[in-house]
Amino acid sequence: MDNLNTYVEDNKDRFLNELIELLKIPSISADSAYKNDILKTADAVKMRLEEAGCDKVEICETPGNPIVFGEKIIDKNLPTVLVYGHYDVQPPDPINLWDSPPFEPIIKETKIHPEGAIFARGACDDKGQMYMHVKALEYMTSSGTLPCNVKFMIEGEEEVGSESLGWFIERNKEKLSNDVILISDTGMIAKDVPSITTGLRGLSYVEVEVTGPNRDLHSGLYGGAVANPINVLTKMIASLHDENNHITVPGFYDKVEEASELERAKMAEAPFSLDKYKEALDIDDVYGEKGYSTNERNSIRPTLDVNGIWGGYIGEGAKTVIASKAFAKISMRLVPDQDWKEITQLFKKHFESIAPKGVRVEVKPHHGGQAYVTPIDTIEYQAANDAYVESFGKTPIPQRSGGSIPIVALFEKELKSKTILMGFGLDSDAIHSPNEHFGIWNYLKGIKTIPLFYKHFTKLSQE
Amino acid sequence: MDNLNTYVEDNKDRFLNELIELLKIPSISADSAYKNDILKTADAVKMRLEEAGCDKVEICETPGNPIVFGEKIIDKNLPTVLVYGHYDVQPPDPINLWDSPPFEPIIKETKIHPEGAIFARGACDDKGQMYMHVKALEYMTSSGTLPCNVKFMIEGEEEVGSESLGWFIERNKEKLSNDVILISDTGMIAKDVPSITTGLRGLSYVEVEVTGPNRDLHSGLYGGAVANPINVLTKMIASLHDENNHITVPGFYDKVEEASELERAKMAEAPFSLDKYKEALDIDDVYGEKGYSTNERNSIRPTLDVNGIWGGYIGEGAKTVIASKAFAKISMRLVPDQDWKEITQLFKKHFESIAPKGVRVEVKPHHGGQAYVTPIDTIEYQAANDAYVESFGKTPIPQRSGGSIPIVALFEKELKSKTILMGFGLDSDAIHSPNEHFGIWNYLKGIKTIPLFYKHFTKLSQE
Repeated sequence: MDNLNTYVEDNKDRFLNELIELLKIPSISADSAYKNDILKTADAVKMRLEEAGCDKVEICETPGNPIVFGEKIIDKNLPTVLVYGHYDVQPPDPINLWDSPPFEPIIKETKIHPEGAIFARGACDDKGQMYMHVKALEYMTSSGTLPCNVKFMIEGEEEVGSESLGWFIERNKEKLSNDVILISDTGMIAKDVPSITTGLRGLSYVEVEVTGPNRDLHSGLYGGAVANPINVLTKMIASLHDENNHITVPGFYDKVEEASELERAKMAEAPFSLDKYKEALDIDDVYGEKGYSTNERNSIRPTLDVNGIWGGYIGEGAKTVIASKAFAKISMRLVPDQDWKEITQLFKKHFESIAPKGVRVEVKPHHGGQAYVTPIDTIEYQAANDAYVESFGKTPIPQRSGGSIPIVALFEKELKSKTILMGFGLDSDAIHSPNEHFGIWNYLKGIKTIPLFYKHFTKLSQE
Repeated sequence: MDNLNTYVEDNKDRFLNELIELLKIPSISADSAYKNDILKTADAVKMRLEEAGCDKVEICETPGNPIVFGEKIIDKNLPTVLVYGHYDVQPPDPINLWDSPPFEPIIKETKIHPEGAIFARGACDDKGQMYMHVKALEYMTSSGTLPCNVKFMIEGEEEVGSESLGWFIERNKEKLSNDVILISDTGMIAKDVPSITTGLRGLSYVEVEVTGPNRDLHSGLYGGAVANPINVLTKMIASLHDENNHITVPGFYDKVEEASELERAKMAEAPFSLDKYKEALDIDDVYGEKGYSTNERNSIRPTLDVNGIWGGYIGEGAKTVIASKAFAKISMRLVPDQDWKEITQLFKKHFESIAPKGVRVEVKPHHGGQAYVTPIDTIEYQAANDAYVESFGKTPIPQRSGGSIPIVALFEKELKSKTILMGFGLDSDAIHSPNEHFGIWNYLKGIKTIPLFYKHFTKLSQE
């Protein structure tokens, strides 16, 4: 497909500008103040899908944010690819650490991206990667090379747990019927080391609240005599890991699938420099569960991290107060075969049970999802593999990611089809962080690789 | 002094309205945004002191907030009372817990204050108690009953450590020379149980910062593989107390003065109901250092409390992030003979030493002050005792407070005079908390009692 590369290069500037327009809309799903921007973004996605050649595009209402659905059916007898992506983004906090405003995209060169990268919230996660599929469709329809049917399902709640997606899938199984689900919401090892994500961690996200006295107290008059909710919260959270950084919630590890020695040996082969890793994060050492490597800790092992904590006086200067309440947001990354609902209950039961006298503790489950591992001996995986080989001239490395796309497990269950995770982002893209960006090379490479998956998948499914 | 009580009752409404005017100015010293209100409040205090009969009132510049100094010298051969107070207030946070705006004073009845109480930040601490002295002076000058000389020193940095006060005293020893220092910035046991504060705890206030990776990270891609600054901070803070709630900072207790059995027995005689205490705070149990009673824990024992903690995402909804930094404000209440500067260094050394690999820890000392205990066999104390007996018809109970007025120890050292702490507030006044208030009865009772101290002190000093 020489025309493919030529077409992408010829339309490069337009492809970039269209993405930049999309990135200007602050579609933050975690904050209801941005509801109108969510709707604006859904409209923009709908318009772009129509331009790209979809026959039918609709904005589907849900109990939460709308889902954009589009399709182009060329022959009922041909296989169907369902593309999933999300148009919502993470909050930009901490805003003061951005070098440029998160919703005013700019292109800058970096060491890893000499061709330039687009800096904006959502540049990689997931507007940029989602839009690669829209432009890949544009190429295939305009060049008459679309080999099969295609459907798009672009949601607006991925960053807050995709709550409405299950509701939507349940009610639209026929409409969503497909032979493979294609997602670009992960990364690859390096620009010259293509990889396919074969596993994702599950997630359980909770918020905890510790209440002590019924009002904030003077820390002189009451200090030392009543339980301080912040001190208590720190003791409770600290107790969730033992001296080997194992998680202490009873039953937490019961269903954890232990990786085989062979699997661990294969993982150890993936190119990885601990020094470069530490240097990139400016840390003097890594940290984690005893007995596992860094790559194991962030992929095949479950974790418990505090994502946010607050209580008492956090303004300028000093306030000698004992707060009435202290709070924390805590998330657990899960692995096969942990069940996120069961883990959430185990955590709630344990955390409430370790509350000392003098305080009341409440655990509010936020959201979650199951972990996922895909086999690599399928035609779905083979097709992706062949696409990378043709595009990169290299065989992609199968790797398990530490991230979570809670709905992937749901897809298998409800739609009975396998998911292929073709990610084109890099760890250094700073997704969920200030100065998130997406390399122009990666963006264009994705558009050049995706149509090859369609080609190989259609061929393989017809053999 | 029957005229005294009559005068106070006749002018009651004006006394209340003048205080309310003062309370409307948000003189928050912790937040530099309120600098203009600080200056406005100093001007208002100056005007009121002049109205009350001071011959000379000046606003004295300092490296920080100005100090209002006023005096009325009637006879160089008579003793001089130096009144100390502060016109700055605590921040009102958390603002949403106030039933009425903190700087729009209103009068409401409460169970303890059927005569009504003034609700506003600073109502009791310390504008209300400081203003009792201004009105007491007004009575004595207008009725020609001022028996001695009087000086006022009203500062604007008490809530942030009185840093400029030491600077000011050092440079104005002559101007501030006195025979006794009189302060109303503490409380009494109950409306029908007058008490005199004979001890104050010292203070060491620090801010700690834990830095991990050089940017916020995606908790899926990095979770479990790098030190999470919030998790680390909770472990470090939790380790500062052992299972008996003793503080684990090496050397922390070395200089703590152990109270004698006799002293502890006397303290145990003070009227106190643990059930009422728990009920008032809506807690199912008290909490604190093993081997000590509640009244001992909050007065004669040192403490370590987190006054504020923050890090990561604290907004609405969920953000799966590992924060680059986590922070806490920590204060230690100290007792004789702990030295606050030494304790601050011990804490800094210890806290930095327990930081695990993978993070950097910084401890920034904020401010502090020495603990203070006054003897009760002095004419200063006797004069206060006699004033209470005459005003309340009861002998006041000497009690040690858990609070800190860092400058009291400084006064003794620099001005060579004893301090008498005549507090008219109640524990239930919620100072430093939302809905701070000051009982109208307490306010007027203070004005009715203070002139009696002048009378008895002058008499006793001339015997």
